[in-house]
Amino acid sequence: MSAYRVIGDWGTSNLRLFRVEDGRIVARRDGPGIAVAGRNAEAAFVDTVAPWLADAMPLSVTLCGMVGARDGWVEAPYADCPSDVEAWRAAATGFDWRGVPIAIMAGLACTGADGVPDVMRGEEAQIFGACVRDPALAQGRRLIVLPGTHSKWALVEDGRVLAFRTVPTGELFALLQDGSTLGPKNSVGDAAEEAAGFAEGLARAGEGAVLAGLFAARAMRLRAGRSADWALGYLSGLLIGGEIAEARALLRADHGVTLIGDARLSDRYARALAVQGVESHRLDGDACALAGLGYAGDMLV
Amino acid sequence: MSAYRVIGDWGTSNLRLFRVEDGRIVARRDGPGIAVAGRNAEAAFVDTVAPWLADAMPLSVTLCGMVGARDGWVEAPYADCPSDVEAWRAAATGFDWRGVPIAIMAGLACTGADGVPDVMRGEEAQIFGACVRDPALAQGRRLIVLPGTHSKWALVEDGRVLAFRTVPTGELFALLQDGSTLGPKNSVGDAAEEAAGFAEGLARAGEGAVLAGLFAARAMRLRAGRSADWALGYLSGLLIGGEIAEARALLRADHGVTLIGDARLSDRYARALAVQGVESHRLDGDACALAGLGYAGDMLV
Repeated sequence: MSAYRVIGDWGTSNLRLFRVEDGRIVARRDGPGIAVAGRNAEAAFVDTVAPWLADAMPLSVTLCGMVGARDGWVEAPYADCPSDVEAWRAAATGFDWRGVPIAIMAGLACTGADGVPDVMRGEEAQIFGACVRDPALAQGRRLIVLPGTHSKWALVEDGRVLAFRTVPTGELFALLQDGSTLGPKNSVGDAAEEAAGFAEGLARAGEGAVLAGLFAARAMRLRAGRSADWALGYLSGLLIGGEIAEARALLRADHGVTLIGDARLSDRYARALAVQGVESHRLDGDACALAGLGYAGDMLV
Repeated sequence: MSAYRVIGDWGTSNLRLFRVEDGRIVARRDGPGIAVAGRNAEAAFVDTVAPWLADAMPLSVTLCGMVGARDGWVEAPYADCPSDVEAWRAAATGFDWRGVPIAIMAGLACTGADGVPDVMRGEEAQIFGACVRDPALAQGRRLIVLPGTHSKWALVEDGRVLAFRTVPTGELFALLQDGSTLGPKNSVGDAAEEAAGFAEGLARAGEGAVLAGLFAARAMRLRAGRSADWALGYLSGLLIGGEIAEARALLRADHGVTLIGDARLSDRYARALAVQGVESHRLDGDACALAGLGYAGDMLV
């Protein structure tokens, strides 16, 4: 029976909890996202960690993500940008739960140069974690991108997040794939076709015709013999290429990009960036999240 | 009991049939769209015109729209662009139905300067009808826009459609409004809020940040006190503004626009065009469709 701490990422769709002993992750347990757990967040938390509690209570619990939203467990504020890792850590909401200190980490908020506000909850742990893991990343001006349902583009200078922008590319792709007249329903998973479509979508996006390029996903099947897999790849390339072109222009970024995420999606973004002449390097999303949460919870993970 | 002809627009969602006597529309009947009628198109047609058939059989039937698609009643070809009204009329598919000649009008197909194919079925009747009604429109180079679920942008020269591009703006808006995390569900129909959001969406689109501007529909509610109606107006303005900027660039059009459609949607497009410094004038969609179908069916309507 060892003393342990719990760190975790509780997002809209998933709860991932890690048991940390002596700076090492020794166990993981998954539970329902906060959208499902909702008002019963505490019960969902207890259900998920029950086997660990049977041994002993944790020394502390540190959580990031939508768990801190208004409809989460306990609302945590947003740290305003520019924000460094210490300002973020200081903005956490702490409370006592059965004698255990729980910290729900703050999100980040910013106002863009164009006056548009933006928010994130959860991704900031990965951004700060990346800087903790790799001190070189916390020097100079960096563009850190977390591709996903709601991609986050963060401009980071000397470890401080200056501003960021959310682009809901993954959500848009899912809507088009599942619910539109453009997304084919008869995909057979042909990777070569998908890759060819992806390349053509990237090329089209580079011409600045993202909206006017969408219908080609259907017309190229009707009139140019393209397959369903080609069309899905095309839509993905068109949207990702468009996201990259717009976000880089908005953040006035003329330098390389650090991608944080899972390998498959990061690979798509790296290819899309290369087409637009942008170098990138990749960091594993889970490792960055754990580093950020560990630092927030006073541990090195 | 008068001799009569039937003309109609049979699209995906609606069947609209008109009874024409001596060049005047004397009755209208509505029926199911071709997506519902499907393989039973003939039965749906008979059901819809039954009261007219009780008098007498029509002299002829002329139909446009998705009725001519592969999954329609009888497949009609696409007339290839450039196409004028005579080439379009000649491409119709004709057949005999209980002794009545039925013509199912062709769609239009084109290949853009960028090599991207495109198709329309139904809108061409309105475009050619507009040129029939207003001979001035059939002179010189014109940009004719039919806003809708799938907006059509047609470049017309001396009455010939040179090329066109489909932009699925209406479909995208519906997906965002109904199925996304960006479209608010608690709209109360506040027209002033909606108009303010629309104006801000148009401004954002002018900066070329359509994808990167989407998330503001949510962030401005969370962080800047904007309402659900504001957010819906914003999404509409962002998409319509983006559509206009992209389509005009693609078609290399630096002149005014003729809008064909219903009054409400045409008004939105006219305002959006004005923001981008483009003059427009409007034609009623139904009147143009009837003029096109009437011409196709050898009548002046």
